[in-house]
Formats: sequence, C-alpha cells, structure tokens
Amino acid sequence: MAASNPEFNFDLDGDTLREECGVFGIFGHDDAAALTALGLHALQHRGQEAAGIVAFNGERFNSERRLGLVGDHFSNENTIKRLQGRVALGHVRYSTTGETILRNVQPLFAELATGGLAVAHNGNLTNGLTLRRELVAQGAICQSTSDTEVILHLVARSQKPRLVERYIDALRALEGAYSLVAMTNKKLIGARDPLGIRPLILGELNGAYILCSETCALDIIGARFVREVENGEVIVISEEGVESLRPFPRMQARPCVFEYVYFSRPDSILGGRSVYEVRKQFGRQLAQEAPADVDVIIPVPDSGVPAALGYSQASGVPFELGIIRNHYVGRTFIEPTQTIRALGVKLKHNANRSVISGKRVLLVDDSIVRGTTSVKIVRMMYEAGAREVHMRIACPPIRHPDFYGIDTPEQKALLAATHTLEEMRDYIGVTSLAFLSVDGLYRAVGYDGRDDIRPQFTDHCFTGDYPTHLTDIIGESAKQQLSLLAEAG
Amino acid sequence: MAASNPEFNFDLDGDTLREECGVFGIFGHDDAAALTALGLHALQHRGQEAAGIVAFNGERFNSERRLGLVGDHFSNENTIKRLQGRVALGHVRYSTTGETILRNVQPLFAELATGGLAVAHNGNLTNGLTLRRELVAQGAICQSTSDTEVILHLVARSQKPRLVERYIDALRALEGAYSLVAMTNKKLIGARDPLGIRPLILGELNGAYILCSETCALDIIGARFVREVENGEVIVISEEGVESLRPFPRMQARPCVFEYVYFSRPDSILGGRSVYEVRKQFGRQLAQEAPADVDVIIPVPDSGVPAALGYSQASGVPFELGIIRNHYVGRTFIEPTQTIRALGVKLKHNANRSVISGKRVLLVDDSIVRGTTSVKIVRMMYEAGAREVHMRIACPPIRHPDFYGIDTPEQKALLAATHTLEEMRDYIGVTSLAFLSVDGLYRAVGYDGRDDIRPQFTDHCFTGDYPTHLTDIIGESAKQQLSLLAEAG
Amino acid sequence: MAASNPEFNFDLDGDTLREECGVFGIFGHDDAAALTALGLHALQHRGQEAAGIVAFNGERFNSERRLGLVGDHFSNENTIKRLQGRVALGHVRYSTTGETILRNVQPLFAELATGGLAVAHNGNLTNGLTLRRELVAQGAICQSTSDTEVILHLVARSQKPRLVERYIDALRALEGAYSLVAMTNKKLIGARDPLGIRPLILGELNGAYILCSETCALDIIGARFVREVENGEVIVISEEGVESLRPFPRMQARPCVFEYVYFSRPDSILGGRSVYEVRKQFGRQLAQEAPADVDVIIPVPDSGVPAALGYSQASGVPFELGIIRNHYVGRTFIEPTQTIRALGVKLKHNANRSVISGKRVLLVDDSIVRGTTSVKIVRMMYEAGAREVHMRIACPPIRHPDFYGIDTPEQKALLAATHTLEEMRDYIGVTSLAFLSVDGLYRAVGYDGRDDIRPQFTDHCFTGDYPTHLTDIIGESAKQQLSLLAEAG
Amino acid sequence: MAASNPEFNFDLDGDTLREECGVFGIFGHDDAAALTALGLHALQHRGQEAAGIVAFNGERFNSERRLGLVGDHFSNENTIKRLQGRVALGHVRYSTTGETILRNVQPLFAELATGGLAVAHNGNLTNGLTLRRELVAQGAICQSTSDTEVILHLVARSQKPRLVERYIDALRALEGAYSLVAMTNKKLIGARDPLGIRPLILGELNGAYILCSETCALDIIGARFVREVENGEVIVISEEGVESLRPFPRMQARPCVFEYVYFSRPDSILGGRSVYEVRKQFGRQLAQEAPADVDVIIPVPDSGVPAALGYSQASGVPFELGIIRNHYVGRTFIEPTQTIRALGVKLKHNANRSVISGKRVLLVDDSIVRGTTSVKIVRMMYEAGAREVHMRIACPPIRHPDFYGIDTPEQKALLAATHTLEEMRDYIGVTSLAFLSVDGLYRAVGYDGRDDIRPQFTDHCFTGDYPTHLTDIIGESAKQQLSLLAEAG
Repeated sequence: MAASNPEFNFDLDGDTLREECGVFGIFGHDDAAALTALGLHALQHRGQEAAGIVAFNGERFNSERRLGLVGDHFSNENTIKRLQGRVALGHVRYSTTGETILRNVQPLFAELATGGLAVAHNGNLTNGLTLRRELVAQGAICQSTSDTEVILHLVARSQKPRLVERYIDALRALEGAYSLVAMTNKKLIGARDPLGIRPLILGELNGAYILCSETCALDIIGARFVREVENGEVIVISEEGVESLRPFPRMQARPCVFEYVYFSRPDSILGGRSVYEVRKQFGRQLAQEAPADVDVIIPVPDSGVPAALGYSQASGVPFELGIIRNHYVGRTFIEPTQTIRALGVKLKHNANRSVISGKRVLLVDDSIVRGTTSVKIVRMMYEAGAREVHMRIACPPIRHPDFYGIDTPEQKALLAATHTLEEMRDYIGVTSLAFLSVDGLYRAVGYDGRDDIRPQFTDHCFTGDYPTHLTDIIGESAKQQLSLLAEAG
Repeated sequence: MAASNPEFNFDLDGDTLREECGVFGIFGHDDAAALTALGLHALQHRGQEAAGIVAFNGERFNSERRLGLVGDHFSNENTIKRLQGRVALGHVRYSTTGETILRNVQPLFAELATGGLAVAHNGNLTNGLTLRRELVAQGAICQSTSDTEVILHLVARSQKPRLVERYIDALRALEGAYSLVAMTNKKLIGARDPLGIRPLILGELNGAYILCSETCALDIIGARFVREVENGEVIVISEEGVESLRPFPRMQARPCVFEYVYFSRPDSILGGRSVYEVRKQFGRQLAQEAPADVDVIIPVPDSGVPAALGYSQASGVPFELGIIRNHYVGRTFIEPTQTIRALGVKLKHNANRSVISGKRVLLVDDSIVRGTTSVKIVRMMYEAGAREVHMRIACPPIRHPDFYGIDTPEQKALLAATHTLEEMRDYIGVTSLAFLSVDGLYRAVGYDGRDDIRPQFTDHCFTGDYPTHLTDIIGESAKQQLSLLAEAG
Repeated sequence: MAASNPEFNFDLDGDTLREECGVFGIFGHDDAAALTALGLHALQHRGQEAAGIVAFNGERFNSERRLGLVGDHFSNENTIKRLQGRVALGHVRYSTTGETILRNVQPLFAELATGGLAVAHNGNLTNGLTLRRELVAQGAICQSTSDTEVILHLVARSQKPRLVERYIDALRALEGAYSLVAMTNKKLIGARDPLGIRPLILGELNGAYILCSETCALDIIGARFVREVENGEVIVISEEGVESLRPFPRMQARPCVFEYVYFSRPDSILGGRSVYEVRKQFGRQLAQEAPADVDVIIPVPDSGVPAALGYSQASGVPFELGIIRNHYVGRTFIEPTQTIRALGVKLKHNANRSVISGKRVLLVDDSIVRGTTSVKIVRMMYEAGAREVHMRIACPPIRHPDFYGIDTPEQKALLAATHTLEEMRDYIGVTSLAFLSVDGLYRAVGYDGRDDIRPQFTDHCFTGDYPTHLTDIIGESAKQQLSLLAEAG
Repeated sequence: MAASNPEFNFDLDGDTLREECGVFGIFGHDDAAALTALGLHALQHRGQEAAGIVAFNGERFNSERRLGLVGDHFSNENTIKRLQGRVALGHVRYSTTGETILRNVQPLFAELATGGLAVAHNGNLTNGLTLRRELVAQGAICQSTSDTEVILHLVARSQKPRLVERYIDALRALEGAYSLVAMTNKKLIGARDPLGIRPLILGELNGAYILCSETCALDIIGARFVREVENGEVIVISEEGVESLRPFPRMQARPCVFEYVYFSRPDSILGGRSVYEVRKQFGRQLAQEAPADVDVIIPVPDSGVPAALGYSQASGVPFELGIIRNHYVGRTFIEPTQTIRALGVKLKHNANRSVISGKRVLLVDDSIVRGTTSVKIVRMMYEAGAREVHMRIACPPIRHPDFYGIDTPEQKALLAATHTLEEMRDYIGVTSLAFLSVDGLYRAVGYDGRDDIRPQFTDHCFTGDYPTHLTDIIGESAKQQLSLLAEAG
C-alpha cells in the first residue's frame, strides 16, 4: 500500500486507474527469493515504480528494495544470492509523483522484541493518518510516509506475548482495505480485511506454500492454486503447516469489482471466474444493452480487447486491430521534449488506416476516467478516415474516488462525475456513447443484478456506496500534510 | 546495416528473425533532430540495440550515438538541443552478441575533402569484406567493423569533383542490399539498390522532405506519404528541391517479401499494400489451403495476430486470446538466473486456460525459424488442458539463410532446412502442421503465383534463389575473421 | 557516530586509525546548506564514506544523504537548491566494511510529537546496545543500526513538555563520548559529553552561529572562532541568541589526546593550541628523549611531516622528502587485481632514491597501529640503498582499543599490545626504534607530565585508563549481534 | 598527443601548466596489461583526463579506453582480463575543455595491410594540421581530432614493404615534438624526435622490455632502468631483442627543461639527474641570486616544496608548512555553486596561522603562469597575520607559449609576457619578488650557463627560442578550425 495521504494520489497526468500493489510470499522452498522475483514479475502490472524482497536465511533477514521494474534488479543472480533462505516476501508498488522514495518501498521491516517482522501490503487504510498521529504522540518514530508502517508500530506496542496475537491485535485497529502478507523467521502470515476488498490467493509448489495477489503469479512458476484467502481470515504458515484463524466476526465478502474491470491480468482466476471470460461477458452484455449499427469493432489496446471480442461475437460485427500500439513506449520518453509532448498520444498508438478508412467504427474500451485519452483516440479515428465513430464502455460511469488502494483522480477530475451522458458524448466527440449498466455488470458476473441491501461487490466508484468508515478522509487528518522530510533515494 | 562478417549473426539464442536496421532523415525543418528521434521511435521494432542521430547546425555537424532504445537517450531535451539544425539523419540498429560497440553505431561520419558526410544504412553488402580488403591494401584505415564504412572510403577516394558524383561512384562498387540515406551540410541523399531489396520511403511535412524505412515513421509526426524511392534510384534533396537520378540500368524490382511476413509494422503501407491486410490475407489463404477441424483459433502473440484473425474470418472458427503476453518482459531479465532460465518461455507468455481447456486448439504463427519457441508454446497448450493442438504457419518453410540484412541463424539451425514436414510436426508435437505455400504467399499479395522466370520478390529464404552475387560468402573473405580490436563502449 | 557494535570495526585491512565523524551545523544564514557543504568538505578527513545535510526551509525539512565524498554530491547546485533555508546540519562519516548503508548515514531525522528533529553525532556510546535492547522491549522500532538512533527514541519517549528538556532527558541516559549537534525548525543545539572527549567548536559568520568539529571548518568559509563548547555543556542557538545550559555536574575535562596525535587537521586550533605546533613539539620532545646518529630525517607522509620537522629542527639533522606519495591513490584501485595487490605499498609511495642511497636514514611517523605499513616502508628504504634505517614514533605505543569513536583494530592486532619494544624493532626491521613517552606526550602539550590522579586527557589507547563505564563492552550486549537486516543502498 | 588545434588549449581557467601525456609499453611479460596499468598510474600526474591500454593476445588486439583516472577503470580485474597477452601499450591524457571525447583517447589503433598498429604519443606536432589537410585531400578519413592519427595514415600509405620502414617513413614527415611508442603483434617500437624534446625511457623487468615516460613508472613495478632513448633514435623491441635504429642525421639533444621545473615527478631520474635534487638546486641557486631577510620559508604546495627546502638549507631560514592542502579537492567540487566559487582558493588550501602570524614570510613557488593563484595565496598570508610577504620563483619568467605538448595559455594571458618585474610584484602584492635567472637555471643543472649558440635545453617559454619549424602556427592552418563533429563519449 502507499502514502496514506490521499492527496498524493490526485496529480496523475495519466488517464488510467492504477492498482496500487502486488504481494507474493513463499514458505519452505530453497529458491524462495528467485520464485518471489518471478511471482512479482507476473504481478508487475499491479505496480511498476518499485519492488522489494525480504528473505530469511536461517540467521538473518536480508532485504533488497529498488526503484524500477522487477526485472531491472531482481533478475540478477547476485541480487538473488544475497537473498538466500527458504522464506521470502516480495512487493511491487505503483508510481506516484511525489513520493517515489526508497524508504517507502516495501516490504517494510522492523526488529521487534519478538524478532524481525517484514510486512507487505496491498490496499489502503482509511484510518492510517489518525493512527499515525496517535502513535507519534506516544513517542513512536516513523521512518516512512507509508500507512503500512503504522501496522509495524501497532505490533511492536501490543502487550500480547506471542507474535501472531500481537499481529491480530494490530489488525483490529485497522480500517479500510488490506491484503497483508507478513513474515517472521518462522512464519508466513496472510491476512485479508473483513470485507476481502483486495484479493489474496493461497497456492502450493512441491510442499511450499505461497500467498499472492493473483493466480497468474502461481502460473509463472507452475504452482498449484489451493484457494482464496477468505475475507477476515488470517492464515499462518509454518513448519507445522497451514493454520486458519478467524479473529473477526463473520461478514459477507465484498471484493472490489475493479479487479474484473481493469486490474487483474486476463489470465488470472478470481472468485472462481476467469477474468478474461468476465471481460468478454461485459462485452456481450454491452452488445445486448447498447447495440450499434457499425462496420467494424476496434478495441482500445490493450485492456479493451476482451470486451471488444465479446461484443464482436455477440453482435457478429467483425473485430479488427484498428489501433497499433508501440510496445517500446512503456518506459521511454519519460522526459519528453516540448515538441514530443505536443504530439501527444501518437507516441503510443497509431491508427491502422486500412481497417478504418470509410468505415463506421465502434471503439470498445474498459473504462473512462478523465476522458482525455478517449478524445485523442476518437480524433485519431476520424483522421484515419472513419465515417462514424461510436464508443462503448465495458463498465458503468466512474463517479466517485477510491480510498482502498486504487489510484483515482479527485472527484472533480472524473469525467462522469461532472458530465451527463450526452455531455460526455459531445466532449469525446462520438456519434453514440454507452456504458455498461451497474446491473449489467453484476449480470455479466453471474448475478441477477446488484443486491442493494447486501451488495456482492465493493463498487463505490460507480455507486458512491463506500463499504467502510473513512476516518482520515472525513475527519481532521485529511487536512494535515505529512511533514516528514523528502529525501532522494 | 551491420557487421559484414556473417558469422556474427549465427549465435542468436532467440528464435526469431530480426530486421537489422531502420533509417530516418529529414531536410528543412527547425525541429529536425526531434522529429528524427520520433521517426526512429516509430522504427524501433527494426533495431533495439543502438540509435544515433547526426545534425548540421549551419556551421558544424553534431552527433549523438548511444547503445539502448531511442527513448532512453533521445527523449531528453538536452540531447536534442545539442543536435540543432534543419537537417538531421538517424539510424536504429539491431542487437548482435559480439559487436555491441559504440563505434559501429550509425550514422557513420567522415570529414572528406568535400566536407562532412554522414551515412545511415539499412541492408547488407555481399562484397563488403572484399572491398574492405582492397581498401586497406591501398592504405585506408578502418575504424568500425561495419561494412557501411567501406562506402565512406569509396566516396573519399573517388576522383570525381562533386560529392553526388563521388557518392554514385561509390554505389557502383557495391553488391547486395542497401537502402542508404546520406547527409552533407547541404543535401540529404537517398539511394536504394538496383533490386530495391530493403524499403525506403519519401515523405513530406510542411515543406520539409523525409526519407525513412516505413510509413509508420511518417504517421507518428503527421507527415504525408509522397512515394517509395524506386529500386536503383538516387534522390537528392536540397534547398533546390527533390532531384531523382537513375545511375543504374533499369531492372525489375524485387523487394524482400519478409517485410510483409514479419518485419514491417502492421500499420505501415508497403508497395501500395497495408501490411496488416496482407498478413490477414496470408491467414485467409492458409485457411483455404490448410483447413482444420478445431474449436478455437489462438494467435501466437504478437506477430501472429493478423494472420489468425484472417484465418478466423475465413473459417468461421472463433478467435480468442489464448496466450497472454507479459509486456514487461521486453527489456527485463536480461541476466536471468539459472532458476529463471529453467522456467523458459513462461516469463514471457502464459496460457489463458479458460479458452483452451478441453478444446481443440489451432495456433497460428507468422513463421518458424528454429522451432524451439513453437515446442514450448505447444507444450503450454497441452498443460492448459487442450484436447488437440494444431498449428498453421503464415509463410512457407524457411530453408535458407539471408545475407541482405536479416539476422537469420545459419542454415543447419533452420528447422525446415533439416526436417521434413512430418518430422517438423513430430518435433513440435502437434496433431497437424501446415505452412502457407510459396504460390499462396504470392496470391495473398495479389499475384497469380510466383513468376519463376522473373520473381516479383526477394524470397531466397523460402526458395534459395539469391538475387545478387554473394562475393564475400562464396569467395575467400568468408573465411577471414575481422581482426579489428574489440572495444568496450 | 556509527554502528554501536564494536565488532564491526575489527576487520580493517588498513593500518591506520580513523576518526569516525565530523559535524557542522549553522543557524541564521541564507546559504546555510552551501556553507555546511563547505564546512563538511573541510572536515572530510574525519569521514570519507558518506555525507548528509538536513535543512529547514521554513515549512519543511529536506534532507540529502549520500555515500561518497562531500564534493561528489554536495558541490552540485541542484542538490544545494533542494536544501533551502537558514538552518542546516551536516555530517561526514567514516567507512567501515560491513555497514556502508544509506539508512545509517547521518543526520538521522525523526518526526516527533514536538516537531521534526535531526541529529548528527561524533563519538560513540558505550551503552548504546543496552539502551537499544530496552527500547525495543518497550515497542520501539529501530530503522538504522546506528547507536545515534537511540537518542531519537529517548527524546521521543521523554515525558517532558519542551523539546530542549526532552533532549537533555535523553542525554542523561547516555554513556560514552558524544559531540552532538541537533536541529529543530527553530533551534540548533550543541552538546558535549561530561568529559568532552570529542571536540566541538562554536563559531560565527555575519551573525550566524556555527557548531562544528574543528576550526578548519570555520576557516574555509571565513568564519570567526568564538570558543570551544565545554565538556558537559549544552548550547541552544535560536533567534533569541545563544544560551548555555549546564545539565550535568561539573567535572574536569578529558579531551581525547588522539586529536593532537593524528585526527585533527594540522591547521586546526584545539584546546587553544595549534595542532601543527603540538605535532612539531612531539618531534622536538622525541629528539630529546631518543636522539639518533643519522644523516637524514624522512617523514612518513603525510601525517609524519610536522613531527619530522620538529625532530629535524631540534637535532639539526636535515629534513628531506625521501618518500614521494602518489596523490591519485586515495580513491583509486579500490578493486585491485591480484597482481596489483601483490605489489603492495608501492601504489601509494615511492622512495626518493637520491636522498636515501648510502645514507643513515631516520624515519619519523605519527603512530604505529598494526605495524604492517612500517615493515613495507622500511623495506623500501633498504631497497633504495639506505645504509641504516632508524625509526621514531611521535606518540607512545598503542596497546588498547578505543570505544569512543576511533576505529581501532581489536587489541590482539595492535603491534604494541603483543610485542616488546625489542620485538617490535626486530619485526619492523630497523636498527633502532623509539616511541615518545607518555609523560613526554603531556610535556609536549605544555604539562609537566601526566597527572595520574586526574589525567588531563583521554589516553586509554596508551594507558588502558578508560574514562567511562563500558556497559556494552563488558556486559552481555557485547555478545549479541544486531540482527537488523543488511540492505544495499 | 592531443588536439592539433592549439586554440583548444587556450581556455584553461586553471593557473598551472600541464604536461599533456604519459606513455608506457611493455614487451614479453605475462601480466603485460596489469603492469601497464600500474605504470600509467605512476604517470598519472602527466594526464588525468583519460587512459587507454591496448594488448595483443596472440590472435587479436584488445583495447580499453576510458575517460577518468587509471585507477577508476584499470584496477578492475575484469578489465585487465580482457587485455590478455604479453605485449601491451598504454597512454594517459591531459584534460582540455573542448575535446574530452572518447575517440581521441589513445592509444590509437588501425588495421593496416601489414596488420594491426597501435600508437601512443607524448608531444605535439607543429605540422599536424597541415599533414591532415593533405591526407584528407587524398581521400583519407580521419576519425579523431588528434594529430596522432596523422601518423597512422602516413604509415598506412607508405609504399615501403616492411612495417618498421613504413613507420620511419612516416616519422620523416613529422615536425615538432614526439616521444612515440607503437605496437604491432610482434614488436614494440619507441621513437624520440630528433631533438629529444619529450622524455622516453628504456627499462627491463625479468627479461621484458619497457618503454615509458619517466623512471617512476619503472619503480612502481620494480623494473630496472636501462637507459634513456636518445634523441632521433628508433628502438625496435621484438622476440629477437632490442634493436637501435638511427634514421635521422645526428643532432645535439635539446630536451625540454620544463620536465625539471614542473612536470616530472620528483622521484624520477632524468638526464642522469634526480628531479628532486635539481629542484632543490633551483632553490639553492635562488637563495644565492635573491636572498631575503625573512623569518620563515613556506612552500606553495605541493610543487614548490623541493625548491623551498633548497632555499631553506642554503639560507638557514627555517622551512615550515604554512599552507595546508585539502587532499580531497583533486576531483571534487567539479560543479561548484556560485557560493562555493566565490570562496575561491580556500577550497584547496588553508593558511596554517601558527607559523605565519607576526612573521616575515617567504613564499617559494615553482613558476608563475597567469599569476591569479599567487595573488590569492599572498592575500591568504596577510589574512593569517603575516607581517611581510616575499616571493621567490624557482624558474625564469614564462613569456612565450609552448607548441610541443605543454598546455600553456595564450601569450597575452602569461603574466610575465605583459608585465615588468615591478608590475608583477605590485600585481601579486608582495614586498619583494624574484625569479631564478636563465643562466641560474642552467647552472643549477650543472652547466656554466646557457650556451646561446647551441642551447642545451628546449627553453622557448623563457627565451622565445623555438627549436623547430612551426608550420601550423605560422601558416594558414592555424586559422582553420577542425570541423569534425563533436560527440559525447
């Protein structure tokens, strides 16, 4: 997880949502760190800013934390050799503008009276700042600006004798979303918040147990999917095996629906469903709800592809690659010159004229955030000779910011929060525009529709229905800026 | 172009063909270097090892040549500022194992008696070593191991008074494939070998003229396509405008068909045809020639996608993304650990089980070189539960190495050079295997078939019919290793 | 100050003593950070591993901490610009083998309930490990392995209301040597331990006050020397001026005599005496105590020069540069090849044959630690043709390790701890060998001799008379290794 | 040697002369490259910008050329391993502002018809530009801006059959100063220009022969001094042994006297004399020619020390270290901030007050170039309380620029070229100022005085008597700027 001050998240100049983190821990394998590096590589789409791995070699914890991609640092044999041991824990982090500093890179580590403890967090606490203020008043020294550090302090200060008890003590103070993996010299501990907002998976490889964010991280190393960690469950893995604890009162789970919409990799299985199939289903549902009289269906690459295929199959209109993506863009032109900046989106995408020119085109995208990218892509279609351009979005309008670990712009920057459907259509410049309905979203996943009494998913970005307290956001903490010094890595 | 010693090319451990180079020159624009950087970025797929740009600022030539991607170095404002002027010439280079050295990075430059001359080369000379030996015997000093340097020496030694005459003098001595762009303080000069083996395009942007390898490099900066430079044509661009020279006897063009099969970007237009449409046509033709009784069509990403779509549309069998590519792999894990290496192809691709399990699968790929990747991908299909796996290849069997600027393995490493169709099917482990026929290839492009008397394309990789002399390869030079010293960049 | 575990210090392969740290703080100047960088540059001889500066810009603390020399990072205008403000605090650190990690680089910083606090430490606590163990048992989380962090925790946990009171509260718990400079958003606070073991100077520049380790750091910026901070004194500098507090019972000062022998720069003034003159006086005293019948006096460069000049002036024997030092060695050959390593000391020094050949030579050095360098230098003299080689050492034999901030080898590696004078003479291979006597050392500084009842200096390295408790060293802590994870910078 | 355009040399902002280069070659030792690295390290004072080594491993030449100090790159075991073989040749280069580019770093290498040839050059050609112009007119391509490359082209174009004959052919065309070491796969060839302006030494180590610039490079590896290469001599070292050729008419040698004054290391032996003793003799002679009534003699560090010692011994006035040098300055603060720049010379030197305050001080320096440093040092003396400051310079006034490999400012920037003695005294601000006389210089070296008919040394900087033609400087070439493109390393 990341900076607990939500303001850090609001100055994205990109026009996408970003998942904040991915976690991967393994207990009981000789190549623990190498497997963790591979697992993190498979989870790279969940965080490209930084990566870290902690391992315990039987005597001592070793840690490597770096800014950059997993492969930049953790494919190096020497790095992996410094991380010997049969237990390892890793984390990938997203990139924000203001806080790209090494000491925030996870896993965080502390030497407690009970021994070393490393923690990796996916999610975001909604009372992190409030807890931090209380801890500092009691004499705690915080080294990072990450809300995850609060968890370490709570464990350190617990009066319980055993580490697992202390850890659960700490969890009880938390509010918000967390899928946590912690590691001691003898245990790997998974924990998912009472609503199970962010995902957490249990896997197994030749007797070694794995806790990770998505099943694609099991696939890369050929590990077996065991089951998902349940909402409110704490799983303790040790030489004695896997123990399941239930410290919280049972609640119905409300996993975040955005994992289906955008974040999870299409080849992952989540909640028993193929993410790829769910996305195709979004497209099929959309074809039913909002048909279009067009000649060709073009996905906005790469995330719109499954929904566009679904739409094409349901409607019978041919699917074509009308936008070619330059795969070298990902990490290049990070310091663009003015001339380059003026050219905008063309660095990344080019129209494939031969399938557009003279056609009525339907663009299918996964979501609209600010809408700025949509404007550019639509203009590109017209410049390539499209006769008409229509757009279909494979999720409902995003009208509310997230506080659980998704990097959303502030509300007033969300196109759908400030525009009617017709205003959006006009702004984007398309002949027709339609979104998947909220009930359609639920139907595509297999429900009859949204259960408004006991909603099956965390879906506040569409509905405004936040599933937990928002202490920091509503209380005074929201006004306080963290004064911790900034430091170059 | 690259190292003239073909042996340098034979130790690829990858299993793809690689285009060797891309070129981009512009005359008459205030942002010449920035536009060149963008053009090279669009041509990045033609060479990822190194990039260079030379510009003339009215007084002096300035040059920046770097190992790495275009965006790594040339998106920096300071670099572009050092390259002021209204004329600029750039080059991207492929990566070979042994010769990754800075002094081979193009454009090459020499200060001649007539003034400075920079040259960028796409292609490969088949008498480069022979010419080099003759020049050294006459007292020439070679600084690079690139065959392009031979051209500079020939120009320097020509007895003709004017630079263009000297340059044409030099071209007359060359054998093989070359699309060259040269630059002086007053001119930009394009030249294509008598057969027009490698591509070269003329474009225009607000009165400035551009010479580049593909139309996608025009698209990125919004430039207009004018026409292709013709085989055997020399184009001289100066303040006086564009002049076309024809120093060679007219011959029928024989462009390299591999630009359609693999190298050019799908959104480029080549020989008047959309590369994307040609590839889809390969797939359609293949569906006719080699139908398959299957449930799903899966492209081998990313290059097999258009042919797979074409096959799907022609056959009516649904197209699905059955292999998910990890886009972060491109530049990562360059120093893989043993553990990682043992895991092989999974770093890059993962099976999307939900569309494979229990199905009869047809894989469509653009070509087979060594076949090692195919083996791994087929195995991945079976592991994901495929009931049957069939494979269709959207070009004929590759049986002969290239000497014109494509980075092919030596002949004995080409799967199709040493195996029958049945042996290949068995080696790859598929239920059925079929390649596009040579005549089918020509038909897909719009001909009735191959004209064996006057073939329309350079296609020796499929047919063994090399279109030029191979002086270095057949003569003694082939046995001589260049003894020029190796040097760390 | 540095790692509190003394074992970290014992694997030096060098043969010198090293001062551990230098500090520099300034209050009330617009160029606070630039002046701090210069002050640290003048103190570079006190620590070459790492440097850090914290500044407060009126709103926020900013910090830059780097491995390497001051000039490598802090001469850069951009770095200094990031450190705006009128208050700044800096630190240079020595280099040990095991703990070269960024999070140990000072000043350390913590955000307390009372606001931000930065601390820079010269010295070493002898109860640091013991205090750390107690704090961790109470739930404190330590991020560095530095004993300085203990001070931050003690301040954070103090129950006193005001920061200065909390800070003094913390100091009361400390044992050992400390010259501390701390900084808040409103104050710069200097503190020297009750014995004043390590130096601390008060200076002034155009109304701005400075606290630093040596007067040479005042000279470099043209600042005025005000006075030394006294033993047991706490000095609080704020907009209100300079306030002196005396929280400890008054004791006689016992500054460390090694500042004269080796650490301080010769142009610094310490305890009212010129370090250069004291060293010359050591040489004169040595000439009286241990005359030698020789032709030429040769200093072991560079630290033996003043004593050799003093010996020459007192004895009338000519002083010559018989050993030429290669000034490029300092930072080079850090990864020497075996061949280079086998050549040993010649990389750094060469004999100046013309003043040695055929002569009876007297070498003058400042001290002997392990003796390995002496052996090599003596051999070099004989190889250059010396007829006889004698040696005089300008301090008494070093027989005991230090625990107050000097980087000494463990006792058994100290030549004088395990050899008699005659054994040392034999080991080093000289015709005669003599050390300055303990009383001679005191006489050279101006006393009649050592006052064994109330010794004027901290001199345990010569006498074994440690001036404070050694809780960590004698108690159980000494056996405990810090288990904090190691981390690459 | 370096940029042939003398204008490159005129924008030094420093106030010293700089030797341009050092060379070291060895034939017949298994550790040839490691020994070369050490030899270059001992010659580092002759060039700090860049270093290069070429070795021949029996099959192939390998080369490493780097910007930076020898120890920065060549102490690395891997670098040395890439340079296997029993013959190696190395070079260190000085630093100029405009031309710090990798392709100028020596040894230069060319693959000739007779095989590979590497050349390292100390000196400067006075007809380099003229020769280059002629060669380019004949079709030669120059890759560096170094005049040394001209030599490679001349060898390449010679019509003689054997390499040594071709090499001598090339030497005959040269004018100016050169101590050259060349290397083929079978030979190491030393050559010194007809006047022997720059030094070149022959040494031997266990049967391996060495050619290098100074004897200190023999000392570092324990090699034996054999003799100096004579003026106009060519020495060919091969498996057959050492052969001496005399291709030029015999002339009287005129070595550059500045090697004694400033460049050579004090521990080197040159022309049979100890450089250290010659410098002391300059001081003694100066004491006779220009006595001073003072209390203390202070050397300007480090180069003034031997002359100051000589002056002190001759005059009986005590020698003291009155200026303390900060040894960390060498490579630091290369990008000083304005604040730091304003502080000027204090970064590097500090006055040692205790020996200056209240005294009549005599500063002894080796030479005065622009005089700016002298002004600062004298001011520093007064600020430290000196009662009077006198200055003595251990060489005659420098009134003329050099064109033979010394980096002098243009004539109008030389203080002594534009000021009388009294004006200089006034400008520098001293009570008295005196220079060594030209005849005194010769006397100190052992002659009765300068032989104006057949001068014993090259001494044009003092006398204006240039010993060779100055074709480039006097002719038209001087006005032509090299237009070769600048390129970042």
